[in-house]
Amino acid sequence: MILCDIGNSRYHFYCKGKTWSHDASSVPKIDTQQLGDEIFAISVRDDAYERLAREYSVTLLNDVVDFDTNYKGLGIDRAAACMAIDDGVVVDAGSAITVDIMQNAIHLGGFILPGISRYQDVYARISPLLAKSINLAVDLESLPQSTGDAISFGMLGSIVEIIRKTAKGKKIYFTGGDGAFLAKFFDNSIVDNILVFKGMEKLLRRL
Amino acid sequence: MILCDIGNSRYHFYCKGKTWSHDASSVPKIDTQQLGDEIFAISVRDDAYERLAREYSVTLLNDVVDFDTNYKGLGIDRAAACMAIDDGVVVDAGSAITVDIMQNAIHLGGFILPGISRYQDVYARISPLLAKSINLAVDLESLPQSTGDAISFGMLGSIVEIIRKTAKGKKIYFTGGDGAFLAKFFDNSIVDNILVFKGMEKLLRRL
Repeated sequence: MILCDIGNSRYHFYCKGKTWSHDASSVPKIDTQQLGDEIFAISVRDDAYERLAREYSVTLLNDVVDFDTNYKGLGIDRAAACMAIDDGVVVDAGSAITVDIMQNAIHLGGFILPGISRYQDVYARISPLLAKSINLAVDLESLPQSTGDAISFGMLGSIVEIIRKTAKGKKIYFTGGDGAFLAKFFDNSIVDNILVFKGMEKLLRRL
Repeated sequence: MILCDIGNSRYHFYCKGKTWSHDASSVPKIDTQQLGDEIFAISVRDDAYERLAREYSVTLLNDVVDFDTNYKGLGIDRAAACMAIDDGVVVDAGSAITVDIMQNAIHLGGFILPGISRYQDVYARISPLLAKSINLAVDLESLPQSTGDAISFGMLGSIVEIIRKTAKGKKIYFTGGDGAFLAKFFDNSIVDNILVFKGMEKLLRRL
């Protein structure tokens, strides 16, 4: 059995403890002889799902996800990651940073920040004077003394503080490309890059 | 005497308690008969300064600003706004949000966030699903339950929390186009749209 999380830009696969990914705009080659030909997927991108489903036997789980929330329009990947835990905060740090709060297996709500790489772009577009590289090692405990540190502190400090305030001491589960980096700013953090797949496995066990 | 703060996009004028502004890419008409023909300016945009100086008698103050800081590359407009106060935090909320901390007339450092209007653009560029209007009335005390509120909360909450954390209870002086709006989130806030000009006046008295 192969699990697949189809995102805006990539197919993310999981099978037998291994993960790999592939550009979502072309069909990935899957060794079905080795891994089996049963693929369960969640998808936020219809054309990429259809591309995969034309070549392989894919069961789409989007419509069977039964997730307890009042949130309107929660992405299926956010729901799956949240399903992996009962209590805590899920931070998925990619092109956007989504932050979701779970309590007693109920989703209390969540919010969205721009992804780290996107901040650098937006500063550069405001003024050529702000077109500096982000210093990911900037010290958040002392006030910046240069433009490069000032934008790095603004970006990182604002992301870290709103997550900290919202987490209220709960465990924070980080996933996504920048997850491990962001986790370093928190004491109560766990990095788990297969959170979405854990949620999918939980869902499949319930069906 | 007319004071002029030449920004990236606009000329900002101040004379006899009144302020007005003009697109920085064309020459503003100034009623010198009424207001006098003596203009003192600070400028972050050379071509706009030269455009003004070709038509009027302009004294550029950039090089006489004597501002106590270790910060490398502090914008002249930020320095002028900070000079208006001895203790507190100066937040200038425009296309970027600059935050500077003053103590005993010394600048301790500062940081830069994207301006409010820029966040909306960056969300829309991440995904069409995030191309929502920012809800400026979003409640920062309860968790969002929709995409529109999730991006609004992410943006506003992250801006407010990093300013609050850095201010450490000091008075916060808000200026710039979004200053009055942001000030509403703080108890210890003062809105002062002529902070830059107050700093320039202080400088002129010292010369």
